[in-house]
Amino acid sequence: MSNTFHLPLKGIVPPMVTPLTFDSKLDSKGLNSILEHLIRGGVHGIFILGTTGESASLSVDFKNILIEESLRIVDGRVPVLVGITDSSTETSRHLANEANKYGANALVSAPPFYFNLSQCELIDYYNSLADKLPLPMFLYNMPSHTQISFEVDTVLKLSKHPKIIGLKDSSGNAPYFKKLLYSVRKDSSFILFTGPEEILAESVLMGGDGGVPGGANLFPELYVELYDAAIKKDFSRIIPLHNLIMEISTNLYSIDSNQSSYLKGLKAALSCLNICAANLVSPLTTFKNSERDLIAKRLEIIQHNLSEII
Amino acid sequence: MSNTFHLPLKGIVPPMVTPLTFDSKLDSKGLNSILEHLIRGGVHGIFILGTTGESASLSVDFKNILIEESLRIVDGRVPVLVGITDSSTETSRHLANEANKYGANALVSAPPFYFNLSQCELIDYYNSLADKLPLPMFLYNMPSHTQISFEVDTVLKLSKHPKIIGLKDSSGNAPYFKKLLYSVRKDSSFILFTGPEEILAESVLMGGDGGVPGGANLFPELYVELYDAAIKKDFSRIIPLHNLIMEISTNLYSIDSNQSSYLKGLKAALSCLNICAANLVSPLTTFKNSERDLIAKRLEIIQHNLSEII
Amino acid sequence: MSNTFHLPLKGIVPPMVTPLTFDSKLDSKGLNSILEHLIRGGVHGIFILGTTGESASLSVDFKNILIEESLRIVDGRVPVLVGITDSSTETSRHLANEANKYGANALVSAPPFYFNLSQCELIDYYNSLADKLPLPMFLYNMPSHTQISFEVDTVLKLSKHPKIIGLKDSSGNAPYFKKLLYSVRKDSSFILFTGPEEILAESVLMGGDGGVPGGANLFPELYVELYDAAIKKDFSRIIPLHNLIMEISTNLYSIDSNQSSYLKGLKAALSCLNICAANLVSPLTTFKNSERDLIAKRLEIIQHNLSEII
Amino acid sequence: MSNTFHLPLKGIVPPMVTPLTFDSKLDSKGLNSILEHLIRGGVHGIFILGTTGESASLSVDFKNILIEESLRIVDGRVPVLVGITDSSTETSRHLANEANKYGANALVSAPPFYFNLSQCELIDYYNSLADKLPLPMFLYNMPSHTQISFEVDTVLKLSKHPKIIGLKDSSGNAPYFKKLLYSVRKDSSFILFTGPEEILAESVLMGGDGGVPGGANLFPELYVELYDAAIKKDFSRIIPLHNLIMEISTNLYSIDSNQSSYLKGLKAALSCLNICAANLVSPLTTFKNSERDLIAKRLEIIQHNLSEII
Repeated sequence: MSNTFHLPLKGIVPPMVTPLTFDSKLDSKGLNSILEHLIRGGVHGIFILGTTGESASLSVDFKNILIEESLRIVDGRVPVLVGITDSSTETSRHLANEANKYGANALVSAPPFYFNLSQCELIDYYNSLADKLPLPMFLYNMPSHTQISFEVDTVLKLSKHPKIIGLKDSSGNAPYFKKLLYSVRKDSSFILFTGPEEILAESVLMGGDGGVPGGANLFPELYVELYDAAIKKDFSRIIPLHNLIMEISTNLYSIDSNQSSYLKGLKAALSCLNICAANLVSPLTTFKNSERDLIAKRLEIIQHNLSEII
Repeated sequence: MSNTFHLPLKGIVPPMVTPLTFDSKLDSKGLNSILEHLIRGGVHGIFILGTTGESASLSVDFKNILIEESLRIVDGRVPVLVGITDSSTETSRHLANEANKYGANALVSAPPFYFNLSQCELIDYYNSLADKLPLPMFLYNMPSHTQISFEVDTVLKLSKHPKIIGLKDSSGNAPYFKKLLYSVRKDSSFILFTGPEEILAESVLMGGDGGVPGGANLFPELYVELYDAAIKKDFSRIIPLHNLIMEISTNLYSIDSNQSSYLKGLKAALSCLNICAANLVSPLTTFKNSERDLIAKRLEIIQHNLSEII
Repeated sequence: MSNTFHLPLKGIVPPMVTPLTFDSKLDSKGLNSILEHLIRGGVHGIFILGTTGESASLSVDFKNILIEESLRIVDGRVPVLVGITDSSTETSRHLANEANKYGANALVSAPPFYFNLSQCELIDYYNSLADKLPLPMFLYNMPSHTQISFEVDTVLKLSKHPKIIGLKDSSGNAPYFKKLLYSVRKDSSFILFTGPEEILAESVLMGGDGGVPGGANLFPELYVELYDAAIKKDFSRIIPLHNLIMEISTNLYSIDSNQSSYLKGLKAALSCLNICAANLVSPLTTFKNSERDLIAKRLEIIQHNLSEII
Repeated sequence: MSNTFHLPLKGIVPPMVTPLTFDSKLDSKGLNSILEHLIRGGVHGIFILGTTGESASLSVDFKNILIEESLRIVDGRVPVLVGITDSSTETSRHLANEANKYGANALVSAPPFYFNLSQCELIDYYNSLADKLPLPMFLYNMPSHTQISFEVDTVLKLSKHPKIIGLKDSSGNAPYFKKLLYSVRKDSSFILFTGPEEILAESVLMGGDGGVPGGANLFPELYVELYDAAIKKDFSRIIPLHNLIMEISTNLYSIDSNQSSYLKGLKAALSCLNICAANLVSPLTTFKNSERDLIAKRLEIIQHNLSEII
């Protein structure tokens, strides 16, 4: 494991978007650009191949290249977490080995998302998967996409496995996250990250270890500042920073009513900022010009507001 | 409206359990006992005929009596909110008029829960209902029981109606609640309460107006203290008080895995504390002795822990 | 029990719409008109206060009157089934007693629809309810509205209760209905009716006892003929009759995409046929003129097609 | 395209299980054995890499081999359909090209199952996918696993694409299937297959083109006979054959309450019949001996009953 990775990991670990060319190849220039942008923004780690990274839509060959190039560029400057979620366990193991080969620090795994496993089956699956992993792993709770939730008792059981070091909760179910903090975290160093950026502040205030906010692809320093303010319980900073994140969420992620609107809006905004192109990979599609123009206009206001508080 | 009710209402408004005799009649002695217990505990209001009050299971005749007796006992000492949720609009209107007749301060209404209304239908329903109501009303978001959610835009539209003064959100969906605070609350006095007690602290910390915590039936002063601490951002108090609420939630509400376990545990605990009997009304059933004994044992520890911090 | 009711009941038992005046009172003239229309159409029974009867939206006082008037009009000419579904068990029992008092033949009960009961709770609920009922009862499986399904094993257990004589399945889940026929019906006279008219023919062909088709409010003789043809396995009749029902379903029930479109279309069509007014009771609303005109135009074609085959 | 494939395809097209060694490699002997068993049983086609084939759990490399070997063994004796479902479109296209290279007759595709596409997105996805496919394709409706349904209007639109020749519906939603037959099939040769074997008979009776029954892996001739009987409307054959399938479904597919019980039971039964080993690939696990013994005992009775009617 890299020297830079001191467990437990805490802070802001953005789920990196995957920069793509118009024909769905890896955009290496964009990859370099976004990684430097994130590191410059002070993030505490980077999570590649998550939902925001469109992982499920990428072929294994693409992922191999992305893992290798990302780790080469980051070069140990911040911890890198690699998503290995796949409906095939063999493919998850392959990705874990690739991640290890190129120097990743940890793995992230959402449940296989085709067969609906019971909680017992989930426990068996993860214990057996973790046994053979070359790196520590985070569980990834993402019921809106996988249709399976890790129940609190399941997390409690899995947290005993030495390779399973934490959980990223993207459910937005705040009572559930509090139960994890109360039941699983107590007397342990199990790491609990929250997904939705709208609840980053409160999660950290109540004892969470940090967040995996998609918007940090755009403005990493904003999320890092909010994390710092939350750690210090500095409400004079928390409230305006949180409100700016709400403005981002409200204005950029819901241009249309599809679930994909978040990702299309995020990538359109990244392209307006010249960080990487707006392209998405099938089955998702890129926003049209009219929607991109709307994003651009709203982004200008957000940038203005951001400049006033950071 | 009573003198005691200064809008906007803020603080702890417990959803009162409905005290019942063994044969499902109103337990008048228990009703007196719990109302005095709540008022003594310093609550900022009382909500009768909510989910915790088993409202959906009670006949209209029963509700008429409960409304009259409750308001007589409270006698203006704290604001009283009355649930009028029913699958029949005519019945909801009838209950609203009863509530008004006996001096209630506001009404609470979850969507009709048999037909699945669209958001448009929901807006029409509430505008038309509110037009004829004799009292101000809170919307009640309770998707786990009604199968319908108020979308943020729907709440924004309904918040323009002069009779619709707030919303109680029992969804536990924290990003949604943040969106309501950001989009609906901004520039308005629309009141936003949170249901699940596990997220009471953070909701108030981030700008929410208070909570409707079931556990406040047991220990009203605990929830009132947490609310006060959250208002003051006093984390030296927030964390231990919150942890005690997590202990209550973890140990009393999940004896079995049924959705009803919360209500059965809560009423069993109330009976251990001699506040009212443990009886539930059909279709729910009362805990057996073995489960009640378990509740009693856990409750003793909770009371001990409570005595150390309050 | 009436002389006309020979168990097991078989055939077409339409879920009668509730005729309403513009101000949501019972339309007695419409009630007489639709009941005579149904009996003249040859139906084998009539089910009042079901989902199609907007039961959940009606007050108890309204239901009392409807039960009394309907049974007086029918006067033993066909069996009458009365829906007693309510979220309050006491109210269900009250309705059962009213139904018995005025001479109903059987009761129909969907699960209480606010608290989500487990299968164990459902079994306890129904055994305890049935013990005290004055009439035999049908279970009513309607998961799209109640959020609860009767599992096959649950039905098997409940079918042993002498008062529980059958089940109406409105789930549309055909493998489930086949499992009920195979596991519950075998060696018993438990009655199995199907709800959705689109699968009436095949349900009867495979051993089901009949249907509760909403469209039979419009054209009772069409559904009775299809039932007879299915009993006789007469495919030269089954296919054209079934296709006409598909034309009704396709053209009248989906004018808009709301769940309520079925009921609004059905009542609009009934008013075009001068059987009863198109009014719905809140929370549902009546179709506007433009939609009613569309229904009228489509209905004319359907009537023409009907006249060619019946 | 092979000479044996005359569109429209009709009849019994079993979703072949994937024979596996204990260490999750392809069991080539088992593959030969099951393919010969199916062809000998008179099936009208074979569908490899469906849900029953555990497609989602297999790596791309594994699938490449399975496609090649299966097509080599079948050698044009029956049409072969190849599942290309994947959350990555690029991978789906790759599999389609492999299938074409080795002589498959058609492709089968369920929606990408990680991102929840809207109906508009689904239409765009399939039109764009189909444009570049080397073979005709069936849509695969499998909402219990993919969380997305093809709405009737969506199927109607997609049925206009020359490459999209049919749909396999595994929803079990019988009114939906009737709507497809009525709205999409009318005036077209669009092929409509049904998934659940419990409704094979009625689907064919009402105009469906055949079925994709998992149990046909065990007893292909039983399902072929039922199909023939249904085509001939021969109820003296339909009912006993259907009841035997219900016995298989009831006794072999629900040993435990997990969704995976169907697949574990099916493969355990295949191993009892010495057709192929019982092994499943992770994340699913193989039945223990006790469950396999139960399957063996029940299978004996089924075989006896089968011998009496076929």
